[in-house]
Amino acid sequence: MKIARIGLDQGPRYAVVDEEGDELILLADDPLFGEGKPTGQRLRSEDVRLVSPMIPRSKVVGFGGSYPDGEPPASTDDLLVFLKPNTSVVGPDDPIVLPPHLPEVVHEVELAVVIGRVAKDVPPERAHEAILGYTVADDVTGVHANLAVAKGTDTFCPVGPYIETELDPSDLALASRIDGELSREGRTSQLAFSVPELVSHASKMFTLLPGDIVLTGSPGVRGVDPQIASGQTVEVECEGIGRLRNPVIRR
Amino acid sequence: MKIARIGLDQGPRYAVVDEEGDELILLADDPLFGEGKPTGQRLRSEDVRLVSPMIPRSKVVGFGGSYPDGEPPASTDDLLVFLKPNTSVVGPDDPIVLPPHLPEVVHEVELAVVIGRVAKDVPPERAHEAILGYTVADDVTGVHANLAVAKGTDTFCPVGPYIETELDPSDLALASRIDGELSREGRTSQLAFSVPELVSHASKMFTLLPGDIVLTGSPGVRGVDPQIASGQTVEVECEGIGRLRNPVIRR
Repeated sequence: MKIARIGLDQGPRYAVVDEEGDELILLADDPLFGEGKPTGQRLRSEDVRLVSPMIPRSKVVGFGGSYPDGEPPASTDDLLVFLKPNTSVVGPDDPIVLPPHLPEVVHEVELAVVIGRVAKDVPPERAHEAILGYTVADDVTGVHANLAVAKGTDTFCPVGPYIETELDPSDLALASRIDGELSREGRTSQLAFSVPELVSHASKMFTLLPGDIVLTGSPGVRGVDPQIASGQTVEVECEGIGRLRNPVIRR
Repeated sequence: MKIARIGLDQGPRYAVVDEEGDELILLADDPLFGEGKPTGQRLRSEDVRLVSPMIPRSKVVGFGGSYPDGEPPASTDDLLVFLKPNTSVVGPDDPIVLPPHLPEVVHEVELAVVIGRVAKDVPPERAHEAILGYTVADDVTGVHANLAVAKGTDTFCPVGPYIETELDPSDLALASRIDGELSREGRTSQLAFSVPELVSHASKMFTLLPGDIVLTGSPGVRGVDPQIASGQTVEVECEGIGRLRNPVIRR
């Protein structure tokens, strides 16, 4: 099932994408906190604007070093850990805004895990119980800055377009593009740890709340330099989920 | 005005402390999002349990290096910046829980600024418009760990006991104690930057939401080693606000 959140005049509403993909069926409530039952009311996909499929109640937890370049890390304890606040999350077509204090910024395609229930100290074999589904994230990152600023700046976590609830995350193709040119590429099978191991590790450090996101890391650079600049359009894509596109502006 | 949040059977409720300090007057709603009007209903202070005076909608923004040891930083851009997620926030008498992966943990007394309105790119001279009031925080910090984990672990941000809305933050005495013995001491007048400058700087990097907290940094070590251990009780105190006490346990 593909869950979308759409912007309507009266505020955001959840919907599911129908099988043909050209219509959305509105849900009665928020599937993260309610039952998420379909109302039967249909809207044409081309008539609606998608917004970020969730705003985390708490945070985005990210990992660095999960796609090893050379020697793989021995344990999840060897990964870099960072946080992005919920104020960094934006959705499809929202601009990535580069601030004056970050002259150099890169982008990173990542499989993003959407947490569905409160989760703390979850073992890998039970991680699936904490997971609602998967989306794609662009882990926008400032260079030469405090990690909290580099990662946590407003608009630096575009996510979407959908939450896919039925997906095996173990071998999915990932790609990012800048103005249509490939900047990163890889497969989740290249991760040093499985997605359940990464979610488990995040839940050992932090209580995860519904709507929180675990970023699984970015595959290596392939093609053009991943540095992004004002006026460009960047894309991140994950097999089985879809493609997220965002314009870049500098203020 | 001293604003408290108290734990009642039907859930947390806001109240203000009356002038004598021995009674609390219940408020009709949350002063961060509503009008915060008094109901007239009074409770004896000794009969109620205080909880954290807010849970941030988004985050806690913290600074390192704001109380210079030697040469002061030239600009707020030279400060260390870190984030604590809202899942790290606890209140008076709640335990600080030391996790297995952080063998060494210290504590730090800090003046904490409570944000009252959405704030982005606020100049120092308008920072007061974004501030609801002040409370005391214990910035609990793991040693030798990723900064996000060192700072952002569950229970690592005790705050309270009250939000004081009428306070000049420019020269307040701060102290921390471990089992009654002084571990840190200083005055906010020793800050390299004023409180409005720190709030302004935080708002340049991140949109601040109502209930978010800006930690202003910790004065130097005086007295015993600030490392904390299971079985101890730690206290942080700020002139004009009050004293926050938390037991320490290890799981």
